[in-house]
This record gives sequence, C-alpha cells and structure tokens, in this order.
Amino acid sequence: MNRYWSRVTQQLTPYVPGEQPKIDGLVKLNTNENPYPPSPRALEAIRHAAGEALRLYPDPDATVLKTAVARFHGVAPDHIFAGNSSDEVLAHVFAGLLKHDLPLLFPDVTYSFYPVYCGLFGIEYRTVPLDDGLGLRVQDYAQPNGGIILPNPNAPTGRLLPLADIEALLQAHPDSVVVIDEAYIDFGGESAVPLVARHPNLLVVQTLSKSRSLAGLRVGYAIGQPHLIEGLERVKSSFNSYPLDRLALAGAAAAMDDVAYFDQTRQAIIASRGRLTEALQGLGFEVLPSAANFVFARHPGHAGAALLAALRERKVLVRHFEQPRIRQYLRITVGTDAECDTLVAALREIVG
Amino acid sequence: MNRYWSRVTQQLTPYVPGEQPKIDGLVKLNTNENPYPPSPRALEAIRHAAGEALRLYPDPDATVLKTAVARFHGVAPDHIFAGNSSDEVLAHVFAGLLKHDLPLLFPDVTYSFYPVYCGLFGIEYRTVPLDDGLGLRVQDYAQPNGGIILPNPNAPTGRLLPLADIEALLQAHPDSVVVIDEAYIDFGGESAVPLVARHPNLLVVQTLSKSRSLAGLRVGYAIGQPHLIEGLERVKSSFNSYPLDRLALAGAAAAMDDVAYFDQTRQAIIASRGRLTEALQGLGFEVLPSAANFVFARHPGHAGAALLAALRERKVLVRHFEQPRIRQYLRITVGTDAECDTLVAALREIVG
Repeated sequence: MNRYWSRVTQQLTPYVPGEQPKIDGLVKLNTNENPYPPSPRALEAIRHAAGEALRLYPDPDATVLKTAVARFHGVAPDHIFAGNSSDEVLAHVFAGLLKHDLPLLFPDVTYSFYPVYCGLFGIEYRTVPLDDGLGLRVQDYAQPNGGIILPNPNAPTGRLLPLADIEALLQAHPDSVVVIDEAYIDFGGESAVPLVARHPNLLVVQTLSKSRSLAGLRVGYAIGQPHLIEGLERVKSSFNSYPLDRLALAGAAAAMDDVAYFDQTRQAIIASRGRLTEALQGLGFEVLPSAANFVFARHPGHAGAALLAALRERKVLVRHFEQPRIRQYLRITVGTDAECDTLVAALREIVG
Repeated sequence: MNRYWSRVTQQLTPYVPGEQPKIDGLVKLNTNENPYPPSPRALEAIRHAAGEALRLYPDPDATVLKTAVARFHGVAPDHIFAGNSSDEVLAHVFAGLLKHDLPLLFPDVTYSFYPVYCGLFGIEYRTVPLDDGLGLRVQDYAQPNGGIILPNPNAPTGRLLPLADIEALLQAHPDSVVVIDEAYIDFGGESAVPLVARHPNLLVVQTLSKSRSLAGLRVGYAIGQPHLIEGLERVKSSFNSYPLDRLALAGAAAAMDDVAYFDQTRQAIIASRGRLTEALQGLGFEVLPSAANFVFARHPGHAGAALLAALRERKVLVRHFEQPRIRQYLRITVGTDAECDTLVAALREIVG
C-alpha cells in the first residue's frame, strides 16, 4: 500500500501464474505448455526476421499475422484482432467490450484471470455455478447481464461444451457480447468460429501458446464481426500501437501456415491424454472427461495439496488451486508419453 | 459507435502512430527510428533463443533483462519495471500511478499519446503551456496536481531540460509522482536515473526503440524506488503476466550489455544531427536546439503541411503535427548522413 499508487492499484489482487522454475531436471506439467517444439517453419521465420529490420517499428496492423489467421480459419482479415498473447487480447476485451452497467457472467470455476481483469477495469461480475460434475449448463446464464465469458473447453476442468449449447447461449443473449475463450479448443473440441458469421455478439479468442507450442512468443487473437474488432482496435491503439514485435509477427504467421505440423502434434497430445487418463484411473483417480491438453483429476484418498507437494519432492510439477469445490483436484498437463510415465510412476509411489 | 462497446470504447480517440509504409525505396525519417542496425550481439542472442524453448512460457519477472538494465544504470534490479515497449510501460504508469483526484499535468506540446492514455483510463489532466520558444519552465507546474509527466528531451521539440530543473520539480512536488519519459535521453541529454536514489516520487522511463535500434522488438522499462515498481508490477500482473517474450528478453538484455556499440551509434547520430542542423539553417530553416535523434524545424516561407507533401512526392517521409502552435514545423528524424543529404537536396528543390 502506498500513497503514490492510484486507487485501483491499491485494491488489486493480481493473477498468479503457474511457476516457471529456473532449475533444470523437472518434469514440468504445471502450465499447460506443449511438450513438442514449435513448428520448424516458425523458428526459421523468426531467425530470418532477426536482422537489421528490427531497427524499424513493426506493422501496427499486424497484417501478415491477421492474413495467416484469416486463411487458417476461412474468414476475412477484418474479422481478426491480434495481441501480445491471448491474455492481452482478453484484457482489451474486458475493458473494451465487457464493461457495462449489468454484471458480467462467468463460471464459478474457470480461468482465474477473469476476476482479476474485473478488478483492474472496475467491472461488476457474478459467477454462475457449474453443476455438481463441474459441467456448465447454459440455461443457468438466463439472467440479466452485461456480457458473458467462458472458456471452451473450460479451465481447469477440461470439460467441453457442445457447439449447440454455445449457439443457444448466443441466441438467448442477443444484446450481450458472448466471449468464447478457446485456448484449448484444438485438442479435440469444435471451434465456435463458424458461428461468427451469423452472430454479431460472438467473439472467439484463441492463443498460439498451447496447440502451436509458442507460449514463449506471446501471440493470441480474437475472431468476431468487424464491429467488435473495431472496438478492440480502438482500445489497443489507445494502449500500445505496436503490441506485436517483428519476430512474433513472423513466427506466428509461419506457425499458422504450418497446418501439417499443427495436426501432427495435437493428435499426438490427444493420444497421450487418453493413455494418461487410463493410467490415472488405474491408480484410483477420478478423471474428468477432458478436451484440453491437461486432465483434471482427484483421488478419493489423497488431498490435492498433499499430492502436489509429494510430486514436487519427486521433481514433478503439476498445478493445484486452493479454491472452493476444486481443492481435491490436480490439473496435470499432458506431456510426452515419457513425461506422463514419470508422473504416473511417481503417483504410484505416493498413492499406491 | 456500437451498442456492444463499453462506454470508454465509445469515447476513445486513439493514438495515430507515424506511417509504417509497406512500399520500398522511401527515405524514412518520420518515426525516429535509428538508422543503424541493432547490436550484432542482440541479433545473435535472438537467433540463439529461437529454438525449442519457445514452447515454454517466458520468465514473468523478466529477470535477465532487469539484471542487464540494472547493471547498465548502476541500480538494483528491484528498481526496474520492464514492459512490451515504453508505450506499454507508460500505459501501466498512467493507470497505476497517475490516476488521482487532482489533475495530471503535462506540457501542451508533447508526446501526443499522453492525452490518449488519460482518455482510456479516465484520468483528468491539465496541459501546461511551453514558453514562446517551446521551452519548458518548471515553475509553471506550481499548481495542485495528481502527478506530472514530461518527456526529456521533450517530443516533438527535442528541447532538453537540465537536471537541476528536474530536481527542482521533484522537490516542489514531493506528494506527486513525477515521471520523466527519457525515450530520447541518450542522444546528448543527462539522465535523471541518478536522482532516483533520493527521490521516492521519481520514475524514469526509457526505451530500447531509439538509441538501441530495437523499435521492432518492443522493449521498454521504468526505473524508480521499489515501492513505485511494486505498484506497476501489480498492474502488469493484472493485465498480462508475461508481457515480454523469450526473444525480446534475450535480445534486449544483450543490447543493454553491448555498451561499446551503443556509444558508437549514438555518437554517430549526434554528429549527423549537427551536420543536418547546419544544412537546414543554410536553407533558411529555424531549427530548435535538439538533444534527440530528430530535429524540429520550420521555414518562414513554407507551411509544414506543404513541405510534408512536397517531400513525400520526392519519396522522403517526415512527420508533421496538425496542432496549435506547431503547424509550421516538421519533425525530421536524424538518419544516416546519406539519408540526411537526400532530405536536404529535396528541401533545396522545394524551398530554394
């Protein structure tokens, strides 16, 4: 607390990301990174861009990236907003599209950055409880609101909402912006992007951090009709004209274009997820059905915090949330099969 | 205007950066980029970082960069805040440290992003007129305020304030955060960083875009006592946990460490600035004394907008601001001597 801080700064409870350890030799299954390297074409594009032209500002319109994203999704480039990670994109979405007189709605168990954005931007919100199986019922959102945001698949549960439910939500709330945060959609879910054409209130947010193995590059984007994108551009150009550097633009565009590599790595992760789920069930864990690159699992005989600590002693990092309803659970990133095997062997020692 | 936009989005007047043309063959002296390439050590560090590790999130604390900045400036790393360009750093400074009940003060002729930030964050501000020679008098700031921000050297005038004036300002306003935006300080000015140790209300902002030739990488930082830095970290961690990607961290740290290259290129620009100033004066221009990598000049017989257009016809880009008091002026980036010669030859055709 400090007299020089603005009032909002005094009142913030910042987001705490998963640990990025500076020690080697850990099996890191705590922040949902992709176990496979980025596309070789993305790395080559970055190396090519690491030259004299870095003395010049990047394109403030991120044209090369928007074009690649548009090509991949089969939409026009004016439907794309790009930012320095989907966290930045979400920040602009909260400030620019989700602050209204009525409260914003999101699930009670979800990405824990959402209430933090609300604190930063002074947005009133109300959480909507998931059902007893940590599933989301769109009919529970039938209440006055100034916007709705939900991840699909949800985090940290991994549970997927069918597209029909999302369409029902869009139709039930034509006056609200409905944001579908698809950070994990590429691991078996069906994207809502095809719904954008007929729903002026839909905004879909995606990231290159997970399914394109580029968490270290910080690139995300949103897809919506141009009137929503224009609102985001206004906010972005009042905050930082050039949020994406030349290397990020080049690498991200090349990654979007390398569809074969994208498909190969995400299929490998989907296969490993099935294998990991079975192994965990074999140890007595209850594993929620996951469409993400992580699983959310609990053991009837062991508290989540105790498992977290015991795994850390064995040099395996996973994530645990000290929150109501999910204290018993661990969120475990799907690594390579070898990493998953190490995790399972450690858990066997602990719970076995 | 759109019913889905938040109220603030409806009311924004976004910042408009200088043109980043997509056509080749222009002499680009419009956005104060450095004519020399980045340090070879910075480029090498980036290429080295463009590997498999990009699949992992970057260090949210930017330790390698803060350490390098701290080493360069001779302060402790806990005095450093780092961001995705000094524009992002400034955005967090406005939101986190400069929003108070009393109005923020800044010059009437200055970096035109400042009022844009105020619009985005709902900050009341009052502009303080420069004197008739577009110089800044610190005694004019003796009025109730919730903070003070000014660039030194000022933009777009290039005029430098002596350190004694800044210290007087700090002493006169012990209850206000005083932000000195030193984007251009390395081209002949004296930095206020040494004042940080004895002034808890001082924050100095710098960028790697100008003197370190890295406009395309988007890295900036602030230096202040830890209590101010902590306020900024709270805002940053409520907005985007990892604003700096792995490539930017590696390249920027290496650039900070390459002091010999930094000194060599900035001295070259200082020398070219003197040469350019003389040539412009020879054509009848009045040139303000500049401590930046640009000059601010007017011709008694030619309007700024007309000169801008005539130069563009000759494939030379400079910047003109359609604003009270400075309509007659052009802001001309100091390029290489060859680029300056091309500009001067074009101007000779136009005014000669």
